[in-house]
Amino acid sequence: MLSEDQMKLQMQAYIDAYNRDDLDALVALYADDATVEDPVGTAPKIGKPAVAAFYQMAMKSGARLALAAPIRASHGSSAAMAFDVQLNMPQGKAVIRVIDVMTFNDAGQFVSMRAYWGRSDMQMLA
Amino acid sequence: MLSEDQMKLQMQAYIDAYNRDDLDALVALYADDATVEDPVGTAPKIGKPAVAAFYQMAMKSGARLALAAPIRASHGSSAAMAFDVQLNMPQGKAVIRVIDVMTFNDAGQFVSMRAYWGRSDMQMLA
Repeated sequence: MLSEDQMKLQMQAYIDAYNRDDLDALVALYADDATVEDPVGTAPKIGKPAVAAFYQMAMKSGARLALAAPIRASHGSSAAMAFDVQLNMPQGKAVIRVIDVMTFNDAGQFVSMRAYWGRSDMQMLA
Repeated sequence: MLSEDQMKLQMQAYIDAYNRDDLDALVALYADDATVEDPVGTAPKIGKPAVAAFYQMAMKSGARLALAAPIRASHGSSAAMAFDVQLNMPQGKAVIRVIDVMTFNDAGQFVSMRAYWGRSDMQMLA
């Protein structure tokens, strides 16, 4: 099982890869059979090609991710983090407030990601 | 299914009940067959008596909970929140950084709670 520090480094690597628009680095964090449920309550993307297609589309938004609080680990093989998705939309700046929960395999890859956010977590900024 | 606002109100009610040491109000937020896995990676407490015993013990610590970021809802029947557990220990003040994920039944009760934190999320403050 991964150490807490190893899980937190992978979570931070996810934020960093996203923010440099580095699709390959981001997808490499996932296991081949990983699932991504973003947002929770929608059909999961299953397997690396589907996961890669999801992030390729997401990155086109130009969104940037900013941690809202320090990344949490767990006593098991999972970790969680609260962050803000910062968006520049034609209508102005907006934010989506998200909590991601990842589970890990022993190689340190994400086997599942679940993103908790809903319509009420999106907000236009002044 | 609950609305996002309803889920967030229940999450806030959990924080508020905990901070007034109101065990009855806190346990009333849970369904009879609820499970509590705190921290994730340990054996879950199953059913209301076990859940009540867990919180009765937890409240003896005098801990106070402070949201670290706004509560997140989801498009499904779950919500998540990042908060700090503030502790006054004989050795001084300490904090545990936690993310709780709750799932809800249609009556608005928690059917499961999972608390993501590990040893690395505990910190002694100056």
